[in-house]
Amino acid sequence: MIDNSIGPIDGALAAHVERALAGYLAERHAGMAEMAPSFGSAVESLSAFVLSGGKRLRPTFAWWGWRGAGGAGDGEQADAVLRAVSALELIQACALVHDDLMDASAVRRGKPTVHVEFAARHRERGWQGSPERFGAAAAVLLGDLALAWADDMYTGSGLTADCYVAALPPWQAMRAEMLAGQYLDVLTQAKGDESAEAALSVARMKTAAYTVERPLHMGAALAGAPEPLVTALRAFGADIGVAFQLRDDLLGMYGDTDVTGKPAGDDLREGKRTLLMSVGLRRADAAGRATEARLLRTALGNDSLDSATVERAREILVDVGAVAEVEAKIEQLTGTALTALRTVELAEPAGAVLDGLAVTATRRTS
Amino acid sequence: MIDNSIGPIDGALAAHVERALAGYLAERHAGMAEMAPSFGSAVESLSAFVLSGGKRLRPTFAWWGWRGAGGAGDGEQADAVLRAVSALELIQACALVHDDLMDASAVRRGKPTVHVEFAARHRERGWQGSPERFGAAAAVLLGDLALAWADDMYTGSGLTADCYVAALPPWQAMRAEMLAGQYLDVLTQAKGDESAEAALSVARMKTAAYTVERPLHMGAALAGAPEPLVTALRAFGADIGVAFQLRDDLLGMYGDTDVTGKPAGDDLREGKRTLLMSVGLRRADAAGRATEARLLRTALGNDSLDSATVERAREILVDVGAVAEVEAKIEQLTGTALTALRTVELAEPAGAVLDGLAVTATRRTS
Repeated sequence: MIDNSIGPIDGALAAHVERALAGYLAERHAGMAEMAPSFGSAVESLSAFVLSGGKRLRPTFAWWGWRGAGGAGDGEQADAVLRAVSALELIQACALVHDDLMDASAVRRGKPTVHVEFAARHRERGWQGSPERFGAAAAVLLGDLALAWADDMYTGSGLTADCYVAALPPWQAMRAEMLAGQYLDVLTQAKGDESAEAALSVARMKTAAYTVERPLHMGAALAGAPEPLVTALRAFGADIGVAFQLRDDLLGMYGDTDVTGKPAGDDLREGKRTLLMSVGLRRADAAGRATEARLLRTALGNDSLDSATVERAREILVDVGAVAEVEAKIEQLTGTALTALRTVELAEPAGAVLDGLAVTATRRTS
Repeated sequence: MIDNSIGPIDGALAAHVERALAGYLAERHAGMAEMAPSFGSAVESLSAFVLSGGKRLRPTFAWWGWRGAGGAGDGEQADAVLRAVSALELIQACALVHDDLMDASAVRRGKPTVHVEFAARHRERGWQGSPERFGAAAAVLLGDLALAWADDMYTGSGLTADCYVAALPPWQAMRAEMLAGQYLDVLTQAKGDESAEAALSVARMKTAAYTVERPLHMGAALAGAPEPLVTALRAFGADIGVAFQLRDDLLGMYGDTDVTGKPAGDDLREGKRTLLMSVGLRRADAAGRATEARLLRTALGNDSLDSATVERAREILVDVGAVAEVEAKIEQLTGTALTALRTVELAEPAGAVLDGLAVTATRRTS
């Protein structure tokens, strides 16, 4: 049960989501610690990871989908919906823990990633075998646990049978689309695909569908929203989600490390095939700027890149007009997203909040 | 829908399980192939893996738990239960794909493991970056997909709401116990824990609970079994499951490669902390056979072990009486398991079938 002492859900959503997650994780951890104490201690790392922050974007969009379609802001049903949408953060924990492992990322939210934490534990205790392999195994298993618990938390959230069944299609699609998006991302990098289409496909699947469109869809479905409302929310989510990814790509190149929590240029080092990079290469080629195009291509995926080259890559992407083109695309997508939203009447304050989210999630922060 | 042309479910269970899995995977694959064709092609590898054999032990125990508690052998409800218990094979697909990755195993069921298959694909096509990293990413994501789809298949199996809710506790416990067992296994190896307690803990969690006890529990719960029947089936499953693992450990050292599908001595090379090895070390130490104890300790986890040393390790484990002690333990556990089963009355033919499974799963095959 949610203790409402921190205020109504609408006004303190992230805090309520965290409380729901903390309660659920404590309960599962207790069961686990009794059954297998050493796994219980590993589960503490997962709990700490889940509760260590993040923007809680997916529960936020899902909650406002529910509210926009007329779902109650408090009471028993609202508490159940809060728990159901909080479960999205456990899917996200799986996605991040496994993504960090696949990308061999060392830092997340300013802290060591899970595989790095467990490799360090192995090393400190002088255990046998490879610390890296131990770290990788722990990350695989804790990510799996988060994914299994996401379903368990959703199933046990206390939704009425009708609500539960109505939201199953977006719930199921979301997990598959998240994984499809991750795979497309890895595949696009492996193929060295420079096309804008490839970059946009990844953004559509990995960010738009999984982060915005399906959470909104799920929230609206929980409230039994009519088809036109679902369609409008999904159209809004698809466009705002891509815009959000494009903003994230720009932050990955130009953002403040203190804000993004990871070193500037990391996307470049990891070889992420962003639209920004695709546009930059196309424009550099078209303008006959062979030296600049070569620098970008060599920098992409070079994990020992120095900061001077990162700086030079940044300048080139501005110079050839790639940053401006991506900014224009963000603006256009934000526009079409808001237009889609205006085709239907949302229960307030959801309409205003979604408008606001569209703006804050996509605006320049520098 | 199940086409019953291959006969009633009882008499052709594995074939029915495979048909249910094939139907479910085809449906999900079609949705995926439309949305993200390149992920669709990766999903084909997962489907092939799921449908490529295996003993279907978990669905088998779950089905006979259902039948033993009086569940119908055919009709609409039986078809729904068949689909629900078939979903256990998708949990198992996740466990195997991720386990092979963590153990860096190259072969499974006589074929390349998933991470090896995708690394080879990367290499053949001359893609960028590390083939091994690409293979690992594909295995992580396809294992995740199998785990997510396990829940989706269970949820969508067509159970009545009562059945579905009744079987949730074993369903949820099973996934957590599988992961706890895998983690304990990895941790025990890392710590170099030679104790019988550690080996038995892993066997209890990873094999007994996940493979036999919880599937039986789930089947009985689906049929609304009374508490004493559930207790007896779980007690049977816990003991027969450990016995089954001990038999598997012996097969891992002494089994025919053609039957086990993996090279003899692989467990030794991987450093698996089996009860067999624990007993062998304790007995060699107690008998003052320092040379033999040293050979065993050096062989364990040495992945470039030659076949002469494997052969010598085998002889030592026989000579010090470890094989005989483990055989006696298997016999004792099979005895207590069957005694537990005799405390209740099971609907036939389930009683006879479970008796038979207890014997075939634990008997010597050489």
